[in-house]
Amino acid sequence: MSQGLFDQIFHPATVAIVGASTNDPETGWVGRLVNFGYRGRIYPVNPKVSEIGILKCYPTVRDIPEPVDLAIFNIPARLTPQIMQDCVARGVRIAHIFTAGFSETGKEEASKLEAHVAEIARAGNIRVIGPNCMGVYYPAGGLTFLHTFAREVGTVSMVTQSGAGATRFIHLANDRHIYFSKVVSYGNAVDLDAPDFLEYLAEDSETAVITCYIEGARDCRRFMASVMKCLQCKPVIILKAGLTESGAHAAASHTASLAGSAMVWDGFFRQTGAIQVDSLEEMADVVMAFLKMKSPGGRRVGIVGRGGGIGVIATDVCERAGLKVPPFLPETQKQLEAVTPEAGITVRNPVESAREIAGAADFYKRGLKIVDTDPQVDCIITHIAVDIYGGRQQDMQGELLKAAEALAVTAPALTKPLAAVLSAGEHLETFSATHQSRELLLKAGIPVYPSIEAAARAIYKFRSARGIGKNP
Amino acid sequence: MSQGLFDQIFHPATVAIVGASTNDPETGWVGRLVNFGYRGRIYPVNPKVSEIGILKCYPTVRDIPEPVDLAIFNIPARLTPQIMQDCVARGVRIAHIFTAGFSETGKEEASKLEAHVAEIARAGNIRVIGPNCMGVYYPAGGLTFLHTFAREVGTVSMVTQSGAGATRFIHLANDRHIYFSKVVSYGNAVDLDAPDFLEYLAEDSETAVITCYIEGARDCRRFMASVMKCLQCKPVIILKAGLTESGAHAAASHTASLAGSAMVWDGFFRQTGAIQVDSLEEMADVVMAFLKMKSPGGRRVGIVGRGGGIGVIATDVCERAGLKVPPFLPETQKQLEAVTPEAGITVRNPVESAREIAGAADFYKRGLKIVDTDPQVDCIITHIAVDIYGGRQQDMQGELLKAAEALAVTAPALTKPLAAVLSAGEHLETFSATHQSRELLLKAGIPVYPSIEAAARAIYKFRSARGIGKNP
Repeated sequence: MSQGLFDQIFHPATVAIVGASTNDPETGWVGRLVNFGYRGRIYPVNPKVSEIGILKCYPTVRDIPEPVDLAIFNIPARLTPQIMQDCVARGVRIAHIFTAGFSETGKEEASKLEAHVAEIARAGNIRVIGPNCMGVYYPAGGLTFLHTFAREVGTVSMVTQSGAGATRFIHLANDRHIYFSKVVSYGNAVDLDAPDFLEYLAEDSETAVITCYIEGARDCRRFMASVMKCLQCKPVIILKAGLTESGAHAAASHTASLAGSAMVWDGFFRQTGAIQVDSLEEMADVVMAFLKMKSPGGRRVGIVGRGGGIGVIATDVCERAGLKVPPFLPETQKQLEAVTPEAGITVRNPVESAREIAGAADFYKRGLKIVDTDPQVDCIITHIAVDIYGGRQQDMQGELLKAAEALAVTAPALTKPLAAVLSAGEHLETFSATHQSRELLLKAGIPVYPSIEAAARAIYKFRSARGIGKNP
Repeated sequence: MSQGLFDQIFHPATVAIVGASTNDPETGWVGRLVNFGYRGRIYPVNPKVSEIGILKCYPTVRDIPEPVDLAIFNIPARLTPQIMQDCVARGVRIAHIFTAGFSETGKEEASKLEAHVAEIARAGNIRVIGPNCMGVYYPAGGLTFLHTFAREVGTVSMVTQSGAGATRFIHLANDRHIYFSKVVSYGNAVDLDAPDFLEYLAEDSETAVITCYIEGARDCRRFMASVMKCLQCKPVIILKAGLTESGAHAAASHTASLAGSAMVWDGFFRQTGAIQVDSLEEMADVVMAFLKMKSPGGRRVGIVGRGGGIGVIATDVCERAGLKVPPFLPETQKQLEAVTPEAGITVRNPVESAREIAGAADFYKRGLKIVDTDPQVDCIITHIAVDIYGGRQQDMQGELLKAAEALAVTAPALTKPLAAVLSAGEHLETFSATHQSRELLLKAGIPVYPSIEAAARAIYKFRSARGIGKNP
């Protein structure tokens, strides 16, 4: 696959929007390019309209006054053969077919139409992304398929068979202060397929972490080879959907994919060392560990937070996720006792930072470094059980913020990886209070998880990665 | 165990608060009773104070002018023997020892002190709740251990070895519009223990669903018998903490419990038919199914919501939780196609209600009954993937509310159990938008879950219950 092709995909000098619409100019395909800072030339195409905003609109692709690097198809499926022919005539290099209603419908006629369009493109030397896909999000180049994605540029890339999956993932990630280099939603993949993009990302200097949502691989061997090429230098986190019997049927009617058996995919993950996740939330959680956490030397975790039954449950949760919660050394316990004077406080591990949120700040200043120096643990999870108070504690937001500030001040002095957990529950006030502290911690570079389970799973999977892509 | 004892626990005519404090009169032990609507006589005890609010304060329990049904110990552990002797002298019937610092510390001296206090009580005919526990929450009688709990009266009861666990659970439940009959946090259980309370709740006409947090049972056979007694007429949902190796150690340093092996407890759950949950969130989710859902005739679920990759993941999640997602009948699919005109929409199961939140209301009005009549499914999960929009969609709150209203209007006409899922993600605006619709749905009696996983697990466990406690 030539590097030049991908230069044109991510840095097109000219983009045609076929089926440009006058409604919704801010958030439509044209408006997004304009507002997202795309610096090339945009050619809207629509025979019924003479201009879109300040841009001249062309009746057909053939009427565009220069060759076109990228044409985005935003038109009904039945019109795609004609448009593709126009694209061939005008020297289009890449066609992104956003349009759905092809082989994914399971209907013979629709599949034939898809094959027909693909053949026109192939014969005319046009490379195709799609159909039935969202295309490219590349904030550094001003390309996006949704106006709501972050403009910030990061180092995470994604190759995805699902546009809705990409949309959810990008928002979940952005909310965790995770930003992207390149996302490609490739849909039915009549031409360019996951391995093409993965091979490119393996060598892409702007990409440090690769994520992938996949339902089925057309050429399993090639998909595996491309993943292994990536894994030589960067972590690859994959959500393989359609692994259950019902899920495989759902995948077939979504992208016409053969989902493959769970056993085959188990072998794939074992052999490649790619990290398997079960949900987009978990994918965002694992990526956050790669980006914001030191690499743990082992799987033994020190838990700092509300004790009692909450601490016992937290311990079970960590161990079920694959971590261990060994007792601190006796010296450590003695030192911790000195900074946790309340009766009934446990210091063995978990250590109870404080009964109330109000006491957490003080513990972070005095107790966290004690835990950090204990050789029995490799990493620290600290949780503030905001949900315990059901949003009804007086000045919860202020006390929580004090705790977050103390944690942000102490964290840089720690030698071991740290994850913070702020469990908000379903209460609006708890969630609001949590949100402010969460933002503060994320800005300070501390990964924040919504539950101990999420943190423990992410650490386990981060730790399981085969020595690649760790933070320096 | 005599019924009279529990009458005094839940309907004490007189309560002494030993160690009543002048600080925090609203939220302290005295203030809580006053503000929560307790209608008996309250006797604050504190030698340093002459009154608490408008109440006369007594120097010792002996000075109280009448016999006392319930004395709450809010004093340092070392003072408890003296106070217990005072209680014997004054004819106290039940002592709730809130005080911690006894056998749960693992220290020999503290254990001796606990045994000593217990012996004074036993000899003096006083029954003890605790020590190291929160005691009783009984909103119908104005008893509570936290001022933030709901005043509303419900039919759920809880027996719990963890006060913090109870606190989190009650708030999580209240946020789901679940209300309580009786909660007892019993701590180290030197006298009254889980089986005593469970036997009582088995026959309690105010209790329809029983929940239990337990770390270890002192007398396993008796615990099992009490659970089986309950299960004759009501569901019992149990969170057994300390099931992992590290968790068992944590339990030992929390309540000095012998946690017991996972194998023994597996046998316990299989033999009794009690429902096992792994977290307090899951406990609240399962209780919500019992209270707000029709009983499913089987495990086949129809999924209504965002399709594409989101639908494939949802399908996997349901099947991993033990449900099945079979295809709808061809007739059903045809009918659904007629009400979902967009290209690329899947109707096989999952059925895509709409791409945007805006379309969901219309689908609920026209499509939900079609799904309901399909004999291939036993229950319906409908999810609105609010988090897909990352809080940035225009008028999300309004569109979501329209969808919720349509769902609330349609739901009563459905013959099959229904669960709604509103996934808010970590974004403040998404969460706020979700919150309003969630409240509307809960008020309409529709159970609302934060994720498809939570809904699927709850339905699976609800369905697994052995034919008891189902809604009529």
